[in-house]
Amino acid sequence: MSDSSKTRLGVFGFGCVGQGLYNVLSHSKGIKAEIRKICIKNASKKRSLPEHYFTLDKNELLFNDDIDVIVELIDDPVAAFEIVKTALQNGKAVVTANKKMLADNFEELFRLQLSSNVPLLYEASCCGCIPIIRNLEEYYDNDQLSAVEGVFNGSTNYILTKMFRENVSFETALSEAQVNGFAESDPSLDIDGYDAKYKLGIILAHSFGLFVKPGQLFNYGITHISDFDANYAKEKGYKIKLIAFCRKIGNTIAAGVLPRFITPESKLFGIDYEYNAVMVESIFSEYQYFVGKGAGSNPTGSAVLSDISALTYNYKYEYKKYQLHENLQVSNDFFINLYIRYNPANPLPPDIFEEVHEQYVSHNNAYMIGSVHFDRLVNSGIWEREDVNIITAAEPGIHGAAAAAGKSQEAELAISNK
Amino acid sequence: MSDSSKTRLGVFGFGCVGQGLYNVLSHSKGIKAEIRKICIKNASKKRSLPEHYFTLDKNELLFNDDIDVIVELIDDPVAAFEIVKTALQNGKAVVTANKKMLADNFEELFRLQLSSNVPLLYEASCCGCIPIIRNLEEYYDNDQLSAVEGVFNGSTNYILTKMFRENVSFETALSEAQVNGFAESDPSLDIDGYDAKYKLGIILAHSFGLFVKPGQLFNYGITHISDFDANYAKEKGYKIKLIAFCRKIGNTIAAGVLPRFITPESKLFGIDYEYNAVMVESIFSEYQYFVGKGAGSNPTGSAVLSDISALTYNYKYEYKKYQLHENLQVSNDFFINLYIRYNPANPLPPDIFEEVHEQYVSHNNAYMIGSVHFDRLVNSGIWEREDVNIITAAEPGIHGAAAAAGKSQEAELAISNK
Repeated sequence: MSDSSKTRLGVFGFGCVGQGLYNVLSHSKGIKAEIRKICIKNASKKRSLPEHYFTLDKNELLFNDDIDVIVELIDDPVAAFEIVKTALQNGKAVVTANKKMLADNFEELFRLQLSSNVPLLYEASCCGCIPIIRNLEEYYDNDQLSAVEGVFNGSTNYILTKMFRENVSFETALSEAQVNGFAESDPSLDIDGYDAKYKLGIILAHSFGLFVKPGQLFNYGITHISDFDANYAKEKGYKIKLIAFCRKIGNTIAAGVLPRFITPESKLFGIDYEYNAVMVESIFSEYQYFVGKGAGSNPTGSAVLSDISALTYNYKYEYKKYQLHENLQVSNDFFINLYIRYNPANPLPPDIFEEVHEQYVSHNNAYMIGSVHFDRLVNSGIWEREDVNIITAAEPGIHGAAAAAGKSQEAELAISNK
Repeated sequence: MSDSSKTRLGVFGFGCVGQGLYNVLSHSKGIKAEIRKICIKNASKKRSLPEHYFTLDKNELLFNDDIDVIVELIDDPVAAFEIVKTALQNGKAVVTANKKMLADNFEELFRLQLSSNVPLLYEASCCGCIPIIRNLEEYYDNDQLSAVEGVFNGSTNYILTKMFRENVSFETALSEAQVNGFAESDPSLDIDGYDAKYKLGIILAHSFGLFVKPGQLFNYGITHISDFDANYAKEKGYKIKLIAFCRKIGNTIAAGVLPRFITPESKLFGIDYEYNAVMVESIFSEYQYFVGKGAGSNPTGSAVLSDISALTYNYKYEYKKYQLHENLQVSNDFFINLYIRYNPANPLPPDIFEEVHEQYVSHNNAYMIGSVHFDRLVNSGIWEREDVNIITAAEPGIHGAAAAAGKSQEAELAISNK
């Protein structure tokens, strides 16, 4: 980093988060950082800052000796990766909020930090302004984590809250989320659970030391939730939330993204609208929850600024859980209690459930609730069926094999909704 | 710190937290620290560790070159202060969980760290395993905080939860809290709000850069809550929780400890039993909540271990908010909406309320709800009356002068229950 008194920033992108960063930075006391140049894609858009800030040429930032830190805030993950890679290789520290770019290239980016000895920080990529990465790195470095899970995606939570609390239709709620700047420009990233899965990939590295490609993780979104499912939840007093989870069961890590029924007793029940929540479960500190706005211009800008500030103190991630080499691995070899709703004219494969706890059939809708081997679910392809919806049961959700097979209730490893 | 491969700990006290630390440390992977010596007061108590660990002589720890870090976990705040002072003056880093000792001597301990250039860490002193000090220091260093408040005391929360959810009497709930190790040995520290106030003092330094003596802050506990008050809350669907708060209003900081009615919409509603919650409100990241177990052997031991781990990376608090010199000051010059219940045979002073919003009278109980100038409340002495109970109204709680006087609803500064 330069020895000038202020950290000089080169920012890529001036959308929702970029403008939030500018706003937060210009109102913050104490931080010694300033934006020098902003690289944009579209010269014709009207901007709120003087013209001299902007350029269309990425090299004006990447190869500029007057810039210390690259702040990458663009949408396109492929272009973002090129920017981040070039910056690190040229000795410039990087702050990014791009979870897809990170998730797609995580191990390579980790190795690049080691070889270039330049820090890459990305707190804003995970659950907006919740300081989860920093806390996993610094505070839970010596506690043995058993699970990290929660509401990782603000726009689906906003949509589900609107549907449940205000009886708004899915389509209306989605377009409101987009207008408010909570949703990705490609809505399927949110509503199909990809965005939550990218964040889960990042969290897996910092909680269990695992580098996992997004393709290795199963995700199922909220678009299949029908009036029938919503009414089922309401009658029971449940809400439905999209939950990303990773949970240690022996030496394997059960991980994925699925909607879940949330009971009023759960601390996730009150996490509504664009709020995110991350539950960290560990052997000694037991259950901790981090709650905050998972999206929005200023909250995300604030998280970016916090990383910039950390760089001024020479902070970098140490990937402490990776350094432990615990030989854990992500696997679909676990059981999960699911509610699967389907059209009774088109029965489910007879062997999908290990054990059925409840079933219901009417003219147009049927559902079964019971224990499913996760690998069987993934391979069954029933998640592609238009008439099917899959929701994790209220409790216990994810659990070990013995209990699922009805062999021992004591062997049950975890009840997911605290 | 020594250059030996393991950080060598000298521990004062082997009660609930000390044993928790031993337990957590012996199960933790990756941390290079070991307990060398434990100083105890009572040699005749049966201990779970071999005798060679223990000594009655504090100098065997304080002046021992084979000990790098002093871990202070005793009850007595005066003795604790002597231990911490001596350790710092002799160049030994200190980890402590003693909030009363810290609160009573905070500014002196701050200056001692500067003059001795030795770190003092105390995450476990505030809300058990919630990493609030570290996050205020490292993550909110550049955001402008407007308030920090929440449930800071696990035993009162446990008692109130038992009373509200299980209809248990105050006395039974208190003795259960003590049996479970959630309560201080002197229960009045918990139930009269002193414990929460000590934590508030520590939080004030890290959120607003203020060193405030406990005597400057008003605290009112939960012992006056009667069946009448509890029924009032239940009929409205509220819970009652003991809330410590500090909130910026202009250049003054409104701060204190009072019970508050909590609505089901509040994120504090689900914070039950020994859980603590800290809400951090800032201009840019808006509302963040940290939730975790505020008491108990392993959770607190885990927080102590996390500080020990941070010392191995040469971490120290920088008191960044203090360094900003913002000329803020704690003052009772603010308004608060209160519910005050009293015996109708003994009316309240006629001028206590700035504005009365509701009043109720029956044969044995009367209450008034309205806006009270906090300084007038403190000086009135009505909080000493046996027949009186004071609870902050559900919302808005703390607010600015103009709104309280009914002059402008827009001038209202804060609604306390989000």
